[in-house]
Order: sequence, then C-alpha cells, then structure tokens
Amino acid sequence: MPYEIKSLNEECGIFGVWNCEEASRLTYFGLHALQHRGQEGAGIVARGSHELLGHRDLGLLSDVFSNEAILDRLEGNAAIGHVRYATAGRRNLANIQPFLFQFDDEQIALAHNGNLTNAKSLRRSLEGEGAIFHSSSDTEILMHLIRRSTKATLKEKIMESLNTVKGGFAYLLLTNDAMIAALDPNGFRPLAIGQLKNGGYVVASETCALDTIGATFVRDVNPGELVWISDEGMEIIQYTTDTQLSICSMEFIYFARPDSNIYGVNVHTARKNMGRRLAQEAPVEADIVVGVPNSSLSAASGYAEEAKIPYELGLIKNQYVARTFIQPTQELREQGVRMKLSAVRKVVEGKRVILVDDSIVRGTTSQRIVNLLKEAGATEVHLRIGSPALKFPCFYGIDIQTRKELIAANHTQEKMRQIIGADSLEFLSEQGVIDSIGLPFDAPYTGLCMAYFNGDYPTPLYDYEAEYFASLQREKEQETTEQKEVFR
Amino acid sequence: MPYEIKSLNEECGIFGVWNCEEASRLTYFGLHALQHRGQEGAGIVARGSHELLGHRDLGLLSDVFSNEAILDRLEGNAAIGHVRYATAGRRNLANIQPFLFQFDDEQIALAHNGNLTNAKSLRRSLEGEGAIFHSSSDTEILMHLIRRSTKATLKEKIMESLNTVKGGFAYLLLTNDAMIAALDPNGFRPLAIGQLKNGGYVVASETCALDTIGATFVRDVNPGELVWISDEGMEIIQYTTDTQLSICSMEFIYFARPDSNIYGVNVHTARKNMGRRLAQEAPVEADIVVGVPNSSLSAASGYAEEAKIPYELGLIKNQYVARTFIQPTQELREQGVRMKLSAVRKVVEGKRVILVDDSIVRGTTSQRIVNLLKEAGATEVHLRIGSPALKFPCFYGIDIQTRKELIAANHTQEKMRQIIGADSLEFLSEQGVIDSIGLPFDAPYTGLCMAYFNGDYPTPLYDYEAEYFASLQREKEQETTEQKEVFR
Amino acid sequence: MPYEIKSLNEECGIFGVWNCEEASRLTYFGLHALQHRGQEGAGIVARGSHELLGHRDLGLLSDVFSNEAILDRLEGNAAIGHVRYATAGRRNLANIQPFLFQFDDEQIALAHNGNLTNAKSLRRSLEGEGAIFHSSSDTEILMHLIRRSTKATLKEKIMESLNTVKGGFAYLLLTNDAMIAALDPNGFRPLAIGQLKNGGYVVASETCALDTIGATFVRDVNPGELVWISDEGMEIIQYTTDTQLSICSMEFIYFARPDSNIYGVNVHTARKNMGRRLAQEAPVEADIVVGVPNSSLSAASGYAEEAKIPYELGLIKNQYVARTFIQPTQELREQGVRMKLSAVRKVVEGKRVILVDDSIVRGTTSQRIVNLLKEAGATEVHLRIGSPALKFPCFYGIDIQTRKELIAANHTQEKMRQIIGADSLEFLSEQGVIDSIGLPFDAPYTGLCMAYFNGDYPTPLYDYEAEYFASLQREKEQETTEQKEVFR
Amino acid sequence: MPYEIKSLNEECGIFGVWNCEEASRLTYFGLHALQHRGQEGAGIVARGSHELLGHRDLGLLSDVFSNEAILDRLEGNAAIGHVRYATAGRRNLANIQPFLFQFDDEQIALAHNGNLTNAKSLRRSLEGEGAIFHSSSDTEILMHLIRRSTKATLKEKIMESLNTVKGGFAYLLLTNDAMIAALDPNGFRPLAIGQLKNGGYVVASETCALDTIGATFVRDVNPGELVWISDEGMEIIQYTTDTQLSICSMEFIYFARPDSNIYGVNVHTARKNMGRRLAQEAPVEADIVVGVPNSSLSAASGYAEEAKIPYELGLIKNQYVARTFIQPTQELREQGVRMKLSAVRKVVEGKRVILVDDSIVRGTTSQRIVNLLKEAGATEVHLRIGSPALKFPCFYGIDIQTRKELIAANHTQEKMRQIIGADSLEFLSEQGVIDSIGLPFDAPYTGLCMAYFNGDYPTPLYDYEAEYFASLQREKEQETTEQKEVFR
Repeated sequence: MPYEIKSLNEECGIFGVWNCEEASRLTYFGLHALQHRGQEGAGIVARGSHELLGHRDLGLLSDVFSNEAILDRLEGNAAIGHVRYATAGRRNLANIQPFLFQFDDEQIALAHNGNLTNAKSLRRSLEGEGAIFHSSSDTEILMHLIRRSTKATLKEKIMESLNTVKGGFAYLLLTNDAMIAALDPNGFRPLAIGQLKNGGYVVASETCALDTIGATFVRDVNPGELVWISDEGMEIIQYTTDTQLSICSMEFIYFARPDSNIYGVNVHTARKNMGRRLAQEAPVEADIVVGVPNSSLSAASGYAEEAKIPYELGLIKNQYVARTFIQPTQELREQGVRMKLSAVRKVVEGKRVILVDDSIVRGTTSQRIVNLLKEAGATEVHLRIGSPALKFPCFYGIDIQTRKELIAANHTQEKMRQIIGADSLEFLSEQGVIDSIGLPFDAPYTGLCMAYFNGDYPTPLYDYEAEYFASLQREKEQETTEQKEVFR
Repeated sequence: MPYEIKSLNEECGIFGVWNCEEASRLTYFGLHALQHRGQEGAGIVARGSHELLGHRDLGLLSDVFSNEAILDRLEGNAAIGHVRYATAGRRNLANIQPFLFQFDDEQIALAHNGNLTNAKSLRRSLEGEGAIFHSSSDTEILMHLIRRSTKATLKEKIMESLNTVKGGFAYLLLTNDAMIAALDPNGFRPLAIGQLKNGGYVVASETCALDTIGATFVRDVNPGELVWISDEGMEIIQYTTDTQLSICSMEFIYFARPDSNIYGVNVHTARKNMGRRLAQEAPVEADIVVGVPNSSLSAASGYAEEAKIPYELGLIKNQYVARTFIQPTQELREQGVRMKLSAVRKVVEGKRVILVDDSIVRGTTSQRIVNLLKEAGATEVHLRIGSPALKFPCFYGIDIQTRKELIAANHTQEKMRQIIGADSLEFLSEQGVIDSIGLPFDAPYTGLCMAYFNGDYPTPLYDYEAEYFASLQREKEQETTEQKEVFR
Repeated sequence: MPYEIKSLNEECGIFGVWNCEEASRLTYFGLHALQHRGQEGAGIVARGSHELLGHRDLGLLSDVFSNEAILDRLEGNAAIGHVRYATAGRRNLANIQPFLFQFDDEQIALAHNGNLTNAKSLRRSLEGEGAIFHSSSDTEILMHLIRRSTKATLKEKIMESLNTVKGGFAYLLLTNDAMIAALDPNGFRPLAIGQLKNGGYVVASETCALDTIGATFVRDVNPGELVWISDEGMEIIQYTTDTQLSICSMEFIYFARPDSNIYGVNVHTARKNMGRRLAQEAPVEADIVVGVPNSSLSAASGYAEEAKIPYELGLIKNQYVARTFIQPTQELREQGVRMKLSAVRKVVEGKRVILVDDSIVRGTTSQRIVNLLKEAGATEVHLRIGSPALKFPCFYGIDIQTRKELIAANHTQEKMRQIIGADSLEFLSEQGVIDSIGLPFDAPYTGLCMAYFNGDYPTPLYDYEAEYFASLQREKEQETTEQKEVFR
Repeated sequence: MPYEIKSLNEECGIFGVWNCEEASRLTYFGLHALQHRGQEGAGIVARGSHELLGHRDLGLLSDVFSNEAILDRLEGNAAIGHVRYATAGRRNLANIQPFLFQFDDEQIALAHNGNLTNAKSLRRSLEGEGAIFHSSSDTEILMHLIRRSTKATLKEKIMESLNTVKGGFAYLLLTNDAMIAALDPNGFRPLAIGQLKNGGYVVASETCALDTIGATFVRDVNPGELVWISDEGMEIIQYTTDTQLSICSMEFIYFARPDSNIYGVNVHTARKNMGRRLAQEAPVEADIVVGVPNSSLSAASGYAEEAKIPYELGLIKNQYVARTFIQPTQELREQGVRMKLSAVRKVVEGKRVILVDDSIVRGTTSQRIVNLLKEAGATEVHLRIGSPALKFPCFYGIDIQTRKELIAANHTQEKMRQIIGADSLEFLSEQGVIDSIGLPFDAPYTGLCMAYFNGDYPTPLYDYEAEYFASLQREKEQETTEQKEVFR
C-alpha cells in the first residue's frame, strides 16, 4: 500500500509577466502561489537586455531559487515560469521547464501545462524526419513543429503548430519580442490574464497568482485563443474556431486553490456548494462533520452548515510534511507512526462522524483515514465524497491514464464501502457537481469535462484510442471471469 | 513594518523515547509533530551501544536530518530530541540542542524548553567560580549545577540543581543509564508521558507527538516532578512539594497543536469554546465569519456556529511559505505582492466580515489583514480576538520580554482599533478564557498562568524584577508626558 | 590584469569502458586521471540492463559525483564519461557531456573532444531544416547528422556523418549495443585503446587513464579510424583514407599529463628533451634553474641537467588552489597577497635565475612570475620557453581563436622581454620541438600540428577562413598605422 | 592495508592578524598557505566593532568559506584562524577551532597547535572541580585554567596557565583588546611573527603564510615566549625562563612547506641537503633517481645532483586527489586501480631506480610504491630515506602515539627491506639530519627534537609516562616470545 494522501497529480502551473521591473522576482511570487500545481521542479526564463536567461531545477520553488543571487542573474523586464508536478516515476532534470531553445537566429522559451493526445505519433513522425528530443515530455513537440513550419512569420508558424497538436494544453512562450500564451480548443486547463498597475500584462494558470502579486484580473483565456503580448500591447487571436469549452471539473473539485476563480466561479464557493448539495443528496444522522485536510475543508463546512451538524477538526495535517525525506519504515508504520494526518481523539471519540472527502482515486487513502478515525474512537464513519465516482482515465493533463488504479472502475459502490471500511459511502451526483459549480455556458455539462465520471470524452483520443478501447475490452472479459468465479 | 504573521515565539519542543528499536527515527517523527514549537534548529542524541551520539543543526527538522544516513548513524534504543524556536535575532548553531556533554567518567545529553528567571545571576556566579559556557542560552546552567553538586548520586545532584534554577522549564536528559525528565514547580510548559506497545516510554512536549508515533498517553508530568526512566522502569519523584500549577494559557490559545490535550483538555475544543464564548460576549451583525489561518480556525468556527453566521474561507495561507528565502522587496510589497496570506475576493466582496484571531501582539499583522480584507471588498471588518489583550511580558519561555512591543500595553482599545483600521474590536474576557479551557483544578485561574493579560505573575521574577519594575515606572512617566502632550 | 596562471584551455577528456563490472565506477577513476583536461563539468552515462542512465553537472568530478549513491545508480557493464574544460565565459549545464539522446527506437550517448571548423554552417543548415539544438556546443551536430542520414545501418550513418564534419574531433558514443570511438582525419587530439584483464575494452584521451585503472595499452587510435566495440569484440574501420597525422604539438608541450604516452612518446621525456635542447639553443650564465610549477618542471630539470646548473625549487604552487572560490581583492593583491604561486626567497635571493616555462600566451603570467622572483631577490631572471612563440590561433580544440590575445602575435621578441621584465627571453626553435618529441612518422613536421607557431594549418579553415584572413588583414593595417605613429 | 600515502599527521596550523582592513579575508589567505597542516576543518574568528564573530566547519578551507558572504559577515580589523588535521578517527565539528568563548564580562577566541602531555590529569582535575568540556580536544584546558586563575589581570592569568600546561603548544588567542600568541618552553612547533606594510602584526605557524599575504618576516617566536599584540603595539614576554629549544625535526623533514623558513633555515634547502648527504652516506649504482611526490622531491633532486644520476619523473601524483570522496573498492584495487600515484612506465621501464622518500611510518606506502615501480618495469628499486628510522612515538603534536604502527619499531632494517620489497634500503643518519638542517644553536641536537628516532624525549612525559614504559616492556616480552618462536 503506497503511503500517499492523494494520487491525482496536476500537470503543472505556468506564469508569465511582460513589462515590469524585477520580472523574474514577480514570476517567483506568482509561481509560489501556484506551487500546489507542481512540486517536482520549477524554472524561470527572463528576457534580459541582450538575451533570454534561465534557471530551472528539481525541487520546490524555494529550493530551486534558494538565494537572491539566482534571481538577480535573471534580470529583465519580462519572464515566464513553470512548476512541474511530482510523478511517482523517475525525476529527471531534463523535463523541468521552461525549456530554453537557442537558435542561430533567435531564442525561444517554452512552458506547457497539459497533455497531448497525439504526442506519440507526432514524435515518431518528427523523429522519422531527423528531429532530436532531449526530454521525455511532450512539450518539445510544439517547438519542432514551429521550427519546421514553412509559414512566413513566427505568429503564423505558431498558429499552424497549435492546429497540429491535439489534447489539453496551455502554452506560454517567451521570445525577445513577445510573450505568447495559447489554450487548446476545449480549454481543458484554466488560464487567466491580469494586468499590473503600470499596465504590464500577466498570464497565470490560476487567478490566485494574480492576487498574490497585486495584479488585476482582466479575463480568462478562452478555448482556441492565442494571446500575443508585446511592446505594442496585447492582441488576442482565435487560432481556431472549432472550439467547445470542456474545462476539467477536477480543477473545481480538487486541483485549484480555493481562492482562485475560474470563468467567474470561486473555487471555495463551488466546493462549499458541493458540500451543501451532498448533504441534501446523501444525508445521514451523525454527531460531527469532519473534512479531509486541506482540500475538502470547504466541502465539509458546506455539508455541516446544510446539515446543521457541528463542523469539527477531527483530522489534522502536519503542515511541515512537504519537505520531509525521512519516511517511516514498514515496521514503524505498523506500530502506528503517522507523519502526515492525525485523528483528534478527543474530538471524534464516541462520535458518529460524517467524513467528507473531495474524491476517491485508489481508495487506499480513504481506507487509511476511516481506519484512523475508528482507532481514535469514532463509533461510525460515514464517508461522503464531494464528486461522483472516478471511473475513467484522463488524457488531457491529469496523471491517471489507466483504469486499473481507479477503485471505482473495478468495484461496485458497496464493495468499495467494504474495502474502505466505512459505515456508509455516498457520492455527489454528476448533476450535483454541475449545479454546484454553476458555469453559465450553454454547452454540454455547462462547459465542464466530466469524462473521469462518465467516459464522455469531448475529443477523439488519437494515440490513446486503440489502447484505451483494448483495455476496456480486457476489463470486460476479466470482469466476466471474475463474476464467474464469484458464482462458482 | 516587519513582515511576519505572528511574533509570539514558543521556546521549543522536546521529545524522548526509552527502550525501542530505531529510537532516533521515532524521535524524528515525534519532533516532526512538534515542529510548530520551533523552526530555528533541531537535534537528536541517541544512546548507542557504546556511547551517546548526536546530530544537530540550524534549520527545519527535514533539513537537519536530510537523509537516512544521518539517522542511521544515531543507532541505539533510546534517544532525546529538540526543536528550537526561531528568534528574530541571530541564528547560532551553538544554541541548538540537545547539548551533549563529554566527561571523563560519563556522557550526558540535555534538552530544555522554557526560560529561567535567575539565569543571569546563576551564570554570573558560576562564571565567577571558573565555569565556561559555550552557548548564550540558559540551558547549560543546569549541567554546571549538576557537575558542581557535592551530592553522592546523579539523582540527588539533579534534584538539588532543579531546586536551584527558577522560572519555567521542562528538561529532558539522557545518560547511558537513564532518560530523565523534569518540570518546574509551576508547570509552565506542558509535558506528557506515553507508552509504546512494547512497554517503552516516551516523553513529549505535547500529546500530538504521542499520537503521531502510535504511543498511548499515560499522564501529564505534574509541577515539581522528576521522571526517571531506566531499564528498571519508570520512577516519578516529587523533587519539591512547593508547587502550584500555572500552565501557560497561551498554549491553549495559540501555541499547542489543536489535536494535543493538556491536562485532559483538547486544544481545538478549548479554542472552539473560546470562539463560542466570544460570540456571546461580543456579538455583532455581519454576513460571514472568517478566521486567520491556521491558528484561529477553531475559534472562528466556534464563533460562526454560536452566532449562526456562515463560516467562510475569506483568507488563505500559502502552505509552502515556511521554507521560502526570497522575500518581496519593499517596492513589490507596495505593488501588492503578498506571499503568505491572500484574501478571497469572491468570498468577502461586499460582505460585513467578522474576523476572528487568537491574539494581538504588535498589531501590525492585524492591521495588514484588516487592510487585505477591505482591499478585497469587505464593507465592514469586525475584529474579534479569542483572548484578552496582551499587556505584560512573559519570563517563563515566550519570547516577549518587554512591554514596548505590545500594542495593548501602550494604547487604549479604541486607539488600537483605529491603528488596526477595524470597524470594531473586542477581546475575550479573562473569565471567558478560563471557562472555555475549563481546567478542573482548585487553583488560581483554575491552574492557568494569566500574567500576559493581568500581570499577575505566579512567581518572583528574580533577575527580571528590577528591570521590569523600572520599565513599568518609565512607561508610567512617559504615559504622563504623552497625556500632557495630548492635552496641550 | 587577469589573475590566472595559464590561459590555454584544453577541450576536454573522454573515457569509455566496455564489458566490466562497475563500469561507471571505473569510468570515474579514468576521468579522474583526465581531470587536468577539463574542470568545468563532468558526466558519465552507463549502459544499465534496461536503458542508458546518465549523470552530469558543473564542477570538478569529485563535486559532480560527490557520493557513492550517484555512481551506484549508474549500474551497468559499459559506460562513457567526459570532463569539460573551464572557459572564461559563462558556465552552462547544457554544455556538459556526455549528452544522452532519447529516441522512440533507441538511446545514444555522445561525448566529444575537439572543435569543428564547419560547425557554424552545418548548424545553420540543420536549423534551416528544422533541427533544434539544446546546447551552444558543436557536439550535437553529429547526432543530427546521424539521425538525418538515409543510410541503412547505424554504422553507415555514423560513417557518413563523420565524413561531413570537419576539424578536430575525438568522439565517443554509447548505445545499448556498442561503444563507438572515432578520430578526425588529422588525429588532432590523442585517443588510446586499452584492454582490461578480463578482456574488456577501454578508450581514453590519454594513456595515463589506462594506467590508473590497471588497463594494458593496446594502441593509439589513428586518424580517420572508427572503433566499434560490441559483444562481438573490437572492429576498427577506416571511415576515410584521406588522412594525414597532425597531432597537436601543444599536447606534448603543455596539455597532456607527463606520464602519458602519445604515439609511443612519453610526454615527460619529450619535455625533458625540450629542456635539454633549449639549454643548447639558448644557454646563459646563471646560478639556478627554476621551473614554473607544475607543467614546466620536466623541461626545467632537462635544462638544468644539460646546463649543469642546479635545479632548485624557486617557485611553489599551492596544491589546494583548484577549489578556492574566495579571491583576493584588487587592494589585497596590491598589498602582495598571492594565492597560487610563491617565490622561495631563501632559494632565489641574490641568485641569477633561469626561469623555464613551457609557453607564453598573453604574457601576463610570465610578467607576474618574473616580478615575483625579482621581489624575492633574484638579481637576474632569464626566461626560457620550451616551445616557439605562439603567434596563431587554433581551430581544432584549443580555446584560442583570435590573435589579439597572443602577446607574440602583437610584439617583437625584444618588446615582449621588456613587457615581461625579464633580463633575457628565448624560445625553443620549431625544429627543437620536432626533434625533442621525435615522432617517427614520415609526414610534415613528423606528424605534428605546428600551426600555433607558424600558421601552417593542415586543413582548410571552413567557417573560420573568411574571418581569420580578415583579421590578419586588419592587423596588418593596424600594424602599419602603429608603425607610422611610432615614426611620427 | 589502508590506502593512504602518509600516516603522519600534523596537529594544525594557526594564523592571526592584528590591525588591518579585511582581517578575516587576510586570515583566509594565510590559512590557505597553511592548508597542508590540516585538512579536517577550519575556522576564523574576527574582532568586529562590537564583538568577536566566528565561523568554523568541517572540510577544507575552501569548503568552510565557500562564498564571500561568510567572510563578509566576519568584519573587523583583527582575526585569528585555524586549520585542523585529518585524523583517521571520527570527524567532529566540536573539535574544530578557533573556539569562541562567551563570558558575561568578555569574549575570548582560542586556537591551538600541539599536544599537551598532562592534558588527561588536568582535565580530570578540572572536571572534579565542576568544569564542563565541550570537545574531546585538549585545547579547552587552557581556557579553564585562565578563568579559574586568581591572578589580577588577564595577562597574569595567561602566564600562570601557560606554566601549568605541559607538552607542545603554540597558542593563539583573540580578545576585544589584544591578539596573544604563546609557545611552549621547548618550542616544539614553529611560530613566526610578521609585519604588514601598514604596521599591522601577523602571527603564523609557517613563514610561507607571511609571504602569501605580502607580510615581512620579523622573527620566530622563541620557546617560553608570550607575544602580546594590542593597539599599543607588540610586547614580547618571557613567561618562563626554563626553556630549551627542541623544535620538531619532522617539520624540516616532512611537515613544513618547502618555501617556509624555520629559525632561518629554508625547508627546501634543508631537504635538498638531506638528499645530498644521503647520496654520500648511502650511494648505490643506478640509472635514475625518483622522488615520492610531493614531499620528497627536494631530497630526491639533492640526491640526484650529488650522485650525478639523472633525476626523473618516475612517479606522478594526481593533483585533484584531495577532494575525492569516491574510493576504489577492494576488487578494483586488485585490478590495479590507482587513484593517487602512478608510475611512469616509459621512464622507469628497464631502469635501476633510486627511490627517495622522506620517511617511513607503517611501511605500507613504501611497499606499494616499490611495487608500482616494479610493475612498471623497474629492474631494481633502491629505497633511500631522507631521515633515520622512525622508532618512537611523538607526544608533542604528531599523531603517532604508539610504537605498534611504526614498522621500524618492530622490525630490523633487513626485515623492513623484505617487507617493502626493495632491493636495498638505507636511512639518513641522525647526524646527517642535524648537519643538513644546520641550526646554529648550542643545544642538544642543535635545538632539534630527535625523539622519534632515538627516544630521547626533551621533557618528562607526564600522563603518557606510565603507559609508554609499560608498552615498551610489553614489546620487549613479546619480542622475546617471537624470537623463541623463531628458534623453535
């Protein structure tokens, strides 16, 4: 059993600023507000007076930029930055962004949040033509397309390339002349534009980064838009009109910071609404409501208010856990060593607890938390999830690309409850999510991507298509076999 | 204006374990749960098979023990550890504990949480006899007293020495034969005993550390007790009977982790009670209740429940802030860069906000937060403090030794409100604190030290006495002068 | 005046081993023996059981591989490594080798010692076809050529590519199937093959690396050869027959370690011969002979023996200087602070000194050393240089690409003597160098490249041609102007 | 067999400067010139405008002072520093000097080079009176004596204390008012006074440090002298008249840097003389003379000149070895991996070699070097040692305190030759050492300590006495037993 609170991993945060003193320092603070979107590595490229200058490394932002001298070197009045998510797999400096490409005739820096669905075939085709990739990420692909484009201007080359890549992407580029942002035709990932007091522009994955640096929100980047910021000002170009908003619903449910707003909807408020709705959809008699810190506290307080049951601190998260390299051995874990989460015995002892969490991935974390509460004396634990059961993988930027690891894809709700050890288990309905977020758009699911819950992918899956359907088929067969075994 | 959320500093956390495999590793996890009590430095001394072995350094625990090899070197089945608070002043490795003393005939490790009130005179007297101190902390004094004692046994030497030092102290010592804990006659600082499944003993500043490592709570160490743990088991000796419990009320209000229990009282519950009581004592019409993260969230939710006003996430704290070396320049701060706390505009905009905080020290933080909320659109901000006004310094282990820095010691409540910029400002009453905590003891203030609020120090002040009363006198004169100036 | 002993910089050292346990560890020790060829950065790529694994970083080898864990991760039975020279310019991780290229169908690691003369035009042409370079070094070019080759096999692709690049190069490649070495058609840089006791093969820039790891010397790689080592053994292919040995004479004079042998000639012996010959060609009456440590000690002892004048330690080099980041300020330097070299007053005081150095680049170092000796009391200092005057830049791998910095290209010998402040100054003749080294080949200069001394470049200069001749022209005009000014 | 070139370890270097700008920076460069005297750790204490400030850590000087900021913090116009030797045993920050003692009434920094012979009894007695020691070194003892002295002034207290400690010591102290140096009554360790151009004073273990920083040599500190440097100038006090110079002969033979002068004798010159004398005392027919780098090169060139046999570079030492943490495994060593020293095959192959080394401690290094040369093809290796056989331990500051490890104390010369594998083995005579150094003093051995060679200790051995004679007795008995066994 892997020891990890949450196995959903976001695919990074991006931040850029054009026209301001201390651009790289401002980018540092912007990225600092986006650190929750990626902890594996970070980097900044600044537009110095003569050339683009960059620094990137593995680790938290505060490790990568561990002293003033590093930032001081990145002088200039424009900069872009990137924080990269932590994968379970191997950590590799080569994948840390922004990438900085040196050409005989120009320099381009590139940062990317998302996942391409035709990366594999594009890469294979580009390599067939002699292209050399330095990282295993799919970010470089855009640069190869741009450089191979036969269009006349950089703008046209980029527009052509954006129409070639498929999937979820928010790109941020920096040249000596411009800062360029682009969002995929479905707007899977959030991206916002802000403005500094001096008129300078800011682009960030979430609005919380705008607030942190004192910038004013201008507007969200819309699907299929290319944002071109230069000394002439900001130009917004629709590089394709074949668009349809399908923003990742998990941004509202789990990823984004509660103080961020996406398409005008505050994330904390959406979560609190989900909690309220959950209390309506799945009430249960109990003594206290407890949220899983930190991401589920908004939903839990919503549930408590709606249910008129006290909201209590029944679980506490160690706030220093992010940087700890020492882990308990298996033996110590069995003795009860718990680094990250503790149950508060005095609060939960003898109580019937409603435990609110935002989502269930593998189920191992839920199992562990329910167990924690019961060991601390809770007489009942009713698990309430602020979103529907996660049954389908994501190909647009969340690190779940197989159904195998998803407990809800492999078990009935009752079986899940048994595995997790809760006294009851209920999920928020799909409509509950949609209503709680309350996007104003006249679009399927009001503009949300709900594919993790219902498999309704808003785009073709390209390179993943064959594999995905084969896996569905395999599962089906396996399921039948399992059922047969059950009935024997 | 210094940029810091809270300027109250705890004087450290201590943790020790006797009789267990991987004692230093368990100590690491115990200290990890006590990290909030001190971030300047950390150390562990383990009782190896041949000798005591130690490691200590400046930085967070995870920096000091940055790899397994360091812990592996500290082999042995008993260990003590220490986390030290961050002072504003200069950081000095020499003060990081536990100290490890090498004698020709024995080794002793020593860790200390508290502050001696006769340290200066003891030190001067010991130096007069030729004693050499290596640190500027008062911790070494005990060791000099022990070594100079003419008593026959180590136990008697320690008991004699404990009766010589005055003030607030929780000591933890390790020798090759025993782990020894001792608490001052007033029990100013918390100290708890736990037991491992294998029968081994644990001593920790707070019970949260016992929970973290899977130990069972046995009992609190009482004032004037000496706890002697060896291979013969645990012996508890009353080294003085001249005791009177006066545990620091700020432990309940601010310092301790919410999941800790002190003398049977859960800290979160006490804080929630304070919030409820505050709602009764100082009600106000408003739209939402917002707590200052993280320490005031319990009190805020208590206030909200009692007042039946929604509890909202109007402020958010960046959870990665602890390790950031890069700070905004004054210029960036003026542009609105805020690293640590953000107001959530969508939540507070157009709202009358009740802002709940646990205490006010200098007032600069409150001023800043009120300002944050107003900038984010709050129409009114009513500041409610979960404790009485802090007017008197502490000499028992909290880093406030002068009245100068305390806003409440220098201004009327109305003047404070004006400085802070709140629409109203109310404090919880002394009795409110006492009732909310609800200690069961038949003692002044039911066993709490309330001196920060009322100047009623439970002990003589020794070395601080003259200076303290001189300062009171100076203030009085100054006050008169100020008043005169006002009336001119 | 820059404070640096020698401004000639070598273009790296390479080392590879095929078929041995602990290949990366052996490569570490091999590179350790080649550290004098490059101190800016180092890297190793090992052929693990499943894939190629690499580690590289800025700094000395001992910094880059600062603990066992890093080497342990690079498991496998084949590895290649690289040490990179320290340029005056900016340090960049991107240029540190070996490069490790990840393709959909294979992995290739590449290390390079040398300099291509058609790099600029090849790069421009490749970029025109969409190629993306990640470093500013010319090493990547070969990989782009290989990947774009339309030949059938990797071997043929490499052979084709080797015939496209021009200039000086010793390449080392590692794939999952083979270790491949290649030398340019002039053999500008040394490259030797060795064999381990178990039959495994080793390739190294210098034979001293073979000795260090206990390998037996097999033979030098010859100009135009491709060495293909795989589990089938070693195959040596002549990828071009248009070859002519022109090995860099500076390898014998200054770069190579004295215990290395190149084409059968021991470097120390060659230098000692140069010293003897210099004593014959440029005798002078004096009391002691002093060599500039460490590179000129062999030549100095040769001079002393031939001249029958005592060889003394008149200069001493601080052996800990390599890693010192603290440099004397200008003010301290003026007070006489000297970190690197000291004159031994008791040895030189009142003496007529013959100072032997291997070469003069800018002249500033010579000036400083002569001054040191005079300050220490030397009555005369006769500077004797173990090679002819350096007048022409190198385009094959030594970091001197302009005549501007060469004192001998800009001044007469007498003017140089005055600038340096020596009592006399003499150089070894070109024929003296050739005879002292004594290569047995029937080739121009017996197979040496003497271009730095006489401008007789053994190949066309390609991209450098136009610029070089333009600079010669400019100098000529300037010279005339200067002369005119002199005569006015 | 431990892999180490030399197992004689010096007991540190000290350096101090009074009255100059950038005192700590100058101290850095002074210590840099003394780095050969200690590589375990380093430290500097500076006299800032308000207080003494220090920094010390494990590692080479360049590691301990790895950036300018550390030195910048140590502002002030006086400073003392220390480099500490590397013991085989455990590395401990607590022992790194200078120690900085904080008293209520003053601050004192203390650095020490040497070894006390009555440390153990003094420490035991001081601890009996309650003294607490923080390190395991004997340096602190002086401070305890000073602080416990009942004399009126610091100067008198120090003088009294210097008369209490016994053995070999060169002390350097810094207070806010003075820099103080003191040498033991036998002057076992060298200590020199210099003067800056501005009149400021410098004290250093060796004169090479004076040269490095551009200071003029004033004079050696004599046995029993106390040097008191303050704003009033320099005062030299004879704290005892019971003196007799016995300076460590190993300073001339091995420890000191060749460019240093001790009592007017240049170390290189002394070594060259030893080489010449050795050639006279122990001639042998051979083809080349080879010295063990770096310490024996002076002696070897002296031998070569006297014997009129060519001096050749038959061995080469890797100049980057000092910082390498990765060591060859036993297996690799057996395969012939040699990190530190290489034999130059082309130079020694087929040659009869005279190998000159300065001394033999355990013999293992000699054995290894002889083996290296023979493997490289030397037909004969005649080992010539530039000093007599080391048979007795040192108690005055060299890290050999038992006879067990000394090969010459346990074997006949012929047996040593066999173990080492040389074709012949000869030592320089005692008189040879004395004459070669040529001190001008009318004292036993002209003022040298020759005890390592002949057991003639110039002082009582105090704490070591009983143990030492017991060990001699044990050896004698063992020897008899061994002989009996041989004859059986």
